[in-house]
Amino acid sequence: MQVTITRRMTFSAGHRIFNENWDDARNFEIFGPCSNPHGHGHNYALEISVTGPVDSETGMVINLKDMKSIIQEEIIDKVDHKSLNADVPFMKGINPTTENLAHKIWEILSKKLPGMSRLVLHESENNKVEINR
Amino acid sequence: MQVTITRRMTFSAGHRIFNENWDDARNFEIFGPCSNPHGHGHNYALEISVTGPVDSETGMVINLKDMKSIIQEEIIDKVDHKSLNADVPFMKGINPTTENLAHKIWEILSKKLPGMSRLVLHESENNKVEINR
Amino acid sequence: MQVTITRRMTFSAGHRIFNENWDDARNFEIFGPCSNPHGHGHNYALEISVTGPVDSETGMVINLKDMKSIIQEEIIDKVDHKSLNADVPFMKGINPTTENLAHKIWEILSKKLPGMSRLVLHESENNKVEINR
Amino acid sequence: MQVTITRRMTFSAGHRIFNENWDDARNFEIFGPCSNPHGHGHNYALEISVTGPVDSETGMVINLKDMKSIIQEEIIDKVDHKSLNADVPFMKGINPTTENLAHKIWEILSKKLPGMSRLVLHESENNKVEINR
Amino acid sequence: MQVTITRRMTFSAGHRIFNENWDDARNFEIFGPCSNPHGHGHNYALEISVTGPVDSETGMVINLKDMKSIIQEEIIDKVDHKSLNADVPFMKGINPTTENLAHKIWEILSKKLPGMSRLVLHESENNKVEINR
Amino acid sequence: MQVTITRRMTFSAGHRIFNENWDDARNFEIFGPCSNPHGHGHNYALEISVTGPVDSETGMVINLKDMKSIIQEEIIDKVDHKSLNADVPFMKGINPTTENLAHKIWEILSKKLPGMSRLVLHESENNKVEINR
Repeated sequence: MQVTITRRMTFSAGHRIFNENWDDARNFEIFGPCSNPHGHGHNYALEISVTGPVDSETGMVINLKDMKSIIQEEIIDKVDHKSLNADVPFMKGINPTTENLAHKIWEILSKKLPGMSRLVLHESENNKVEINR
Repeated sequence: MQVTITRRMTFSAGHRIFNENWDDARNFEIFGPCSNPHGHGHNYALEISVTGPVDSETGMVINLKDMKSIIQEEIIDKVDHKSLNADVPFMKGINPTTENLAHKIWEILSKKLPGMSRLVLHESENNKVEINR
Repeated sequence: MQVTITRRMTFSAGHRIFNENWDDARNFEIFGPCSNPHGHGHNYALEISVTGPVDSETGMVINLKDMKSIIQEEIIDKVDHKSLNADVPFMKGINPTTENLAHKIWEILSKKLPGMSRLVLHESENNKVEINR
Repeated sequence: MQVTITRRMTFSAGHRIFNENWDDARNFEIFGPCSNPHGHGHNYALEISVTGPVDSETGMVINLKDMKSIIQEEIIDKVDHKSLNADVPFMKGINPTTENLAHKIWEILSKKLPGMSRLVLHESENNKVEINR
Repeated sequence: MQVTITRRMTFSAGHRIFNENWDDARNFEIFGPCSNPHGHGHNYALEISVTGPVDSETGMVINLKDMKSIIQEEIIDKVDHKSLNADVPFMKGINPTTENLAHKIWEILSKKLPGMSRLVLHESENNKVEINR
Repeated sequence: MQVTITRRMTFSAGHRIFNENWDDARNFEIFGPCSNPHGHGHNYALEISVTGPVDSETGMVINLKDMKSIIQEEIIDKVDHKSLNADVPFMKGINPTTENLAHKIWEILSKKLPGMSRLVLHESENNKVEINR
């Protein structure tokens, strides 16, 4: 039997959504106030899931301590209280929409967490983005 | 890579659950207090998901502004602060269980949102109904 | 030392907000879609607080079992899955705004719960009404 | 069309995570403070989903009253306000990790609820375990 | 009897916490990562309460429609999707801590809402600031 | 102007509610399943508030970093993943009702946080206890 375990972690970050190849009018038309020049920000919640069989000795799919450390070091430490446009190496040159941010986090974490099966990134209480294996 | 984006919107509506071909005793036996003649109501939360590739120019699966307008006009404006039994054209003659309401919302929205992949309709903090493509 | 204990309980009810001495236009002007003739409804959450000293034998301000029974019998059983306009004796002839509903619940429960110090009635995730002793 | 209905129910239980074949040092290394000898506890939230067609007479996938009774009798009555290590027959001899608890609940409920399609067991606001058919 | 009604509204904004009279080391010592030069951001939730008697004709303390418009125009429109440091006239020259932001919002709204009795400003799920009349 | 700042922190603990001077029947009569001999447990959420003027240099009532460290060291480290009956020195010989636990936490923290004005201790999503200065 396959079981999925999910860890939720939070971070706060700033961003400005815009396409550098477009002028301000075009950016505002597509992105609305998300393209305001000085940026804004969110409290993000990130949920990472790993699916696999339950180990008979530990009763676990994966040790949550390990999962937590990996997410903390690879992602949270790099984005928390940062500007996604200016401060985060893995977002360099990438428009920080929630979709693009989720995609990059997936690329990084799925290499460190072999059974990773789902990522949910909440940008606000009404908007979220999800990637499934 | 396929990414799913989800928008949550809320509405408040009244309903009475009953089958008009049954007598009151049979309705009460099956539906309990949900069949009370004068109706009751709920704060519903509707989550609509669209799945697709991320557009390289916008960094989006779909523009949330468009998604929000479609859900607002097609659904929220028609059900919010309404009686699901008396006031909502698309529920005419249909017993307004959460399942039936979800089914009708799916039929309407999936025509307007081609990549629509999931609908979750929360009736209360403990009950929800879900449809997946 | 005074300690306050709070019990949260939920119910779902229907209502139509209107003043029977006004015409429909005036009702719509003041109450908006809340005055729609066939009504709508909400999932309400009611929080009742009792303040007092902690009993040295029980370690309690009041036994939650008793508090729960009183709120259940006096309020929840009378409003849950009901129309506040048509079905609830203590709301007879009263416009069922959240303020008026809270006021009546206060009158009833404060007689049964001597140390009652606060009532919070949530009508939705964004609106609530509160009465303090 | 297949529709999924989900019921959420809560319980509070105590547990100590440990492997009886290991010494205390090994248990602490793997399980950390979860292996503290006198145990600790959680408010669990259990979500059970059933998927199927909507019955044309009732407008339901399954009657929530029945679903609620089954979950209450088979699970909640046996674990609520109990020690998962000492008091729960179906957890006898099993290390009560969230994965193992979810697995046992799945075994019991999926026999009683033929269309059962998903189980989510929340151990805290940040950790949950999930089983899908 | 005095009744309190509360409206919750949300906004997303960016900020950098720092004292311009201090050097970077001193700012980091006091404000930690909140003083990162490129800023970060939050999803704020603002709750505004008005206390007064219930009007016998309307059954309301204040019309929520009016309360909502005032909060929207005076505050939300000015801070949502903005940088609190660069874009918000009423925060000009003020270090945008949650305390200072709450204080300025109180000054503005309490002039427009005579019975305003409480303001709660949530910066994250774990931090909030409150002002009571 | 006085401003209140609140920090929320969580912990999981086990407890058994009983009065050692009573027999099992009397304990069960008063405390119900909370007196089960092997105990159960909860995810607690603790909210601590400090009220005072806003410092003009920092824009803060109190530095949240300090507040967080004090709550962590004085309380969370002593109760998290522990049995309130067996493992927590400050609860020695005290029946661990939420009221008594809140009272002891108040005694400890109010000495370390001079402007402490409120403590809220959530035992579950429906029950909480509160102390105000």
